[in-house]
Amino acid sequence: MRPVLLLAMGPGVAERLLGEPQWARLEGLVRTDRRLVAHAWDGPGSAVAAALAEAEVLLTCWGAPPLTAEVLAAAPRLRAVVHAAGSVKHHVTDACRVRGLAVSSAASVNARPVAEYTLAAVLFANKRVLHAAHRYRTLRRRHDWAAELAGAGNHGRTVGIVGASRIGRRVIALLAPFGFRVLVHDPYLAAEEAARLGVARVPLAELCARSDVVSVHAPEVPATRHLIGARELALMPDGATLVNTSRGSLVDQRALVAELCGGRLSAVLDVTEPELPPADSPLYDLPNVLLTPHIAGSLGTELHRMADHALDELARYARGEPFAEPVRWEELGYSA
Amino acid sequence: MRPVLLLAMGPGVAERLLGEPQWARLEGLVRTDRRLVAHAWDGPGSAVAAALAEAEVLLTCWGAPPLTAEVLAAAPRLRAVVHAAGSVKHHVTDACRVRGLAVSSAASVNARPVAEYTLAAVLFANKRVLHAAHRYRTLRRRHDWAAELAGAGNHGRTVGIVGASRIGRRVIALLAPFGFRVLVHDPYLAAEEAARLGVARVPLAELCARSDVVSVHAPEVPATRHLIGARELALMPDGATLVNTSRGSLVDQRALVAELCGGRLSAVLDVTEPELPPADSPLYDLPNVLLTPHIAGSLGTELHRMADHALDELARYARGEPFAEPVRWEELGYSA
Repeated sequence: MRPVLLLAMGPGVAERLLGEPQWARLEGLVRTDRRLVAHAWDGPGSAVAAALAEAEVLLTCWGAPPLTAEVLAAAPRLRAVVHAAGSVKHHVTDACRVRGLAVSSAASVNARPVAEYTLAAVLFANKRVLHAAHRYRTLRRRHDWAAELAGAGNHGRTVGIVGASRIGRRVIALLAPFGFRVLVHDPYLAAEEAARLGVARVPLAELCARSDVVSVHAPEVPATRHLIGARELALMPDGATLVNTSRGSLVDQRALVAELCGGRLSAVLDVTEPELPPADSPLYDLPNVLLTPHIAGSLGTELHRMADHALDELARYARGEPFAEPVRWEELGYSA
Repeated sequence: MRPVLLLAMGPGVAERLLGEPQWARLEGLVRTDRRLVAHAWDGPGSAVAAALAEAEVLLTCWGAPPLTAEVLAAAPRLRAVVHAAGSVKHHVTDACRVRGLAVSSAASVNARPVAEYTLAAVLFANKRVLHAAHRYRTLRRRHDWAAELAGAGNHGRTVGIVGASRIGRRVIALLAPFGFRVLVHDPYLAAEEAARLGVARVPLAELCARSDVVSVHAPEVPATRHLIGARELALMPDGATLVNTSRGSLVDQRALVAELCGGRLSAVLDVTEPELPPADSPLYDLPNVLLTPHIAGSLGTELHRMADHALDELARYARGEPFAEPVRWEELGYSA
């Protein structure tokens, strides 16, 4: 008998996550009602409450309502949560661990688009592509570009990765064909692991001082707030580029804006603090800044890839196999 | 005895090509005068003529003066030409073949930066990164980016490579980690070779109709003039991107500008026709165009990589070994 599944995610998410091929496959794997997606845990008597009472598996994505002990009490048959996105920390609570739920995430798949965005940012930054485009638009005449860009180029460069996270490691892997020297700062990265990754483990200050591009891939936790501050930015060499695709809070934005307005550094920022800069922020207009609205993660067709991953996990579950990418409680900070 | 070498290249090139490490290595391999670089074949009595008369090897780069039969007659000891750049067709003549010179090029090394620029352009194009940055700058407010970019993303995309040239093949190799469907149009690409490269060989019209990004890597010859014209552009799907890092003449610029002004397509153009667009060209200003001043090839530190390659070839020559990357006369269109 196919397991009973309930979808739980924010409004509008299911429509983008699941294309018709994904819906068809889902309905082949489980029993579910595609017209019912739980955006909140509605109370007794609601359609959501009735479906939750029957559900053996939840398929979750961004905006899924939290699975508190109270919610779990209303879901007596629930055994597993398959998350078609990266972090589960907004909806999977310690009560899920206590209950013994099996939880899977698509964090490895969600790391891919962020790493791809980062790779493109690194290649364009070292080559000073956006600088050249801006200058070309400004000058519109013959110019000695070879002289102006004499310090540019992707050969012989050093890339600094702050955080050997899942995304950081994916970036390291993608950088391999380009012959960069790769430095990593991560207090939890063991020496043998760094050697296996082919990177040099260095303190943050040294990473900033030696890197042509510094890319931030650390988690947002109290210890990483303003990890890249005025001191770290001041250490970066003239013409270096900061790439941030993690969270805005990891960078001291006041210090960053000051450096960027001075023109000594460049930046590629997919995240800022606050998430939406004020309309008069120089970040929108500076020619040495590429500012995007938090799009580096899964977007458009990339959501289908997360759905495909979740469907693979559901197929494993339906066959009685363990998840390929189980969430480890200790990674969530819950005692195991 | 170390061979006698003369540098021959355009004004200002040697200074950018050779850093101090390269000069030091060169002077260890050959006898040469670093103060003398031939920009033209000055007549009898000149320092260049005297050096040419003694030279066994020429180290050439962009802007090297042509090696005509007359020049070769004044170079009785000349046996080899080591070119620290891509194409030798502007200075290596059929007289060099007749004379039996050994010629080496750094075309494989020069392909690398062009392929890297192309890769970054593809990753940003599929993700609509520059579109998002432009829109963010314009709106400066909360916006449903997931809805606006619902058709974006690097997953499940098709990339069309026009020309399985050295650069085209390097692009194909660099695209491997991203899971794209890769189509190639090249009348000289054999079916077995396409299979080996993991690409599908298709006619140009089919390539244009099926690709999310079309990237041009064909040589500039009479048969490729306006290879991408109004018909090919019209076949490209809405929202697709044309990347041109080859030569401006391969694309019918009038037809391209018309499509770009209509907003149906985007473009990343490192080359145009003419090379410098008029100051009032929409190419400078359109938000769906990234226009750069012919910088995708070796630039800045990337010149040192070409120099390092040439030095490796000189070391082989000095040891009496054949070149690793000999120029084949038939590729130049000279009868072998």
